[in-house]
Amino acid sequence: MRKPGNLENLRIVLVRTRNPLNIGSAARAMSNFGAYHLRVVTPYEKAFREAVSAVGAAPLLAKAEEHESVEGAAGDCSLVVGTTAIGHRELQHDVYSLEVAAKKIRGKLAKGRVAILFGSEKTGLSNHDLSHCHFLLRIPTRVEHRSMNLAQAVAIVVYELSRGAAPLRAKNRLRTAPANMEAVDRINAALLQALHASGYIHPRSAATAEEKLRRMLRRFELSATDAEVLLGMHRKILWKLKSE
Amino acid sequence: MRKPGNLENLRIVLVRTRNPLNIGSAARAMSNFGAYHLRVVTPYEKAFREAVSAVGAAPLLAKAEEHESVEGAAGDCSLVVGTTAIGHRELQHDVYSLEVAAKKIRGKLAKGRVAILFGSEKTGLSNHDLSHCHFLLRIPTRVEHRSMNLAQAVAIVVYELSRGAAPLRAKNRLRTAPANMEAVDRINAALLQALHASGYIHPRSAATAEEKLRRMLRRFELSATDAEVLLGMHRKILWKLKSE
Repeated sequence: MRKPGNLENLRIVLVRTRNPLNIGSAARAMSNFGAYHLRVVTPYEKAFREAVSAVGAAPLLAKAEEHESVEGAAGDCSLVVGTTAIGHRELQHDVYSLEVAAKKIRGKLAKGRVAILFGSEKTGLSNHDLSHCHFLLRIPTRVEHRSMNLAQAVAIVVYELSRGAAPLRAKNRLRTAPANMEAVDRINAALLQALHASGYIHPRSAATAEEKLRRMLRRFELSATDAEVLLGMHRKILWKLKSE
Repeated sequence: MRKPGNLENLRIVLVRTRNPLNIGSAARAMSNFGAYHLRVVTPYEKAFREAVSAVGAAPLLAKAEEHESVEGAAGDCSLVVGTTAIGHRELQHDVYSLEVAAKKIRGKLAKGRVAILFGSEKTGLSNHDLSHCHFLLRIPTRVEHRSMNLAQAVAIVVYELSRGAAPLRAKNRLRTAPANMEAVDRINAALLQALHASGYIHPRSAATAEEKLRRMLRRFELSATDAEVLLGMHRKILWKLKSE
């Protein structure tokens, strides 16, 4: 299993969130990907306290920091990135797709703190919030349905940021060691005899049928284990065909 | 902004989902990333109907298909992928990280339908569900907190799949048009009967043998043409076994 990238320097900042479920849900996603530092800026009504006091609230949520302003929440960070779903507002900033933005952010995370701001469910980030940002990132959703659920957006951003270490390789590698051609030919022989015995192969076209079968068995790219099983099956079937 | 990949051939299959909010939330994420085809398999109690009748249910949800089984929900797909968060169960399949799995899936999506199965919030996919899968994918969450919210997992998967455009692999296109799962299941049925008739399968271990066979046939990644040939062969063998 690959190790998620180190997000120790990341600060996820939820600005004026209205729904406590979204705060809880964002916190869970952060925990999934090893982003432990949540900050909230004046969440709507008591959304934050509700989220924190919910049964089973993650430790992450319990130690989330509450701030009065974006300035406060991002003050100790060397890079501040805003998130946006919109195209209509006249954006003063560079906007990068998440993939491109994530590369920039990962580079900065190695050296210092980075804040990523998520606006409220209804209105997103204000122009004032945006004025604190170095650049903006956009998750490349469909033009016709840009607006994402807040917690899902957080989940996708932390997922993307945690990329990077060596990708997970196939487990059960031993099982997928390829069968050698001798093993494949043994299956070929057993199956061929069964096909003769059952009358599937007409004597006149036997040579062609044999070639077709051989090519087909090679296309399956059998593993050694599967080849053994397949051989056992067809030998048993053949034995039965012949014994009768 | 880059254009999301074409997910027209993708089928997201929610198996035994318990919470209607998760169904609705998964549907929204799918819509964000242009994945329009949702299938549900026997969702818990009336979760599905509740989700569909919810105010503002997306058109996507209204045309979601309800199926009685994973077989039914994945029958017209040529690749079936299971999702897993777990490490403790003894997995019989190859498990790839989402990033690696997505590359394989995007390749297949260019040629035919792909089903991705998501299990219930409590128990995930059963061994029976998994036996219908070609391989498994895991979103690389932290080992200490693997379990993701269902809808967030769906969101991350469709996000990852929508990266880049679907690459068109022209290699031997006609011959390698993949067999759909109905075709594979017909071979499965014929071979299974032959194995019973020949005494290869012991009645006591029939269920396990059946699952093993199903998994093995899926590993072969049969083309539609080869599947037809293989079916013909085994039906003929079976006919001979039974006629004696």
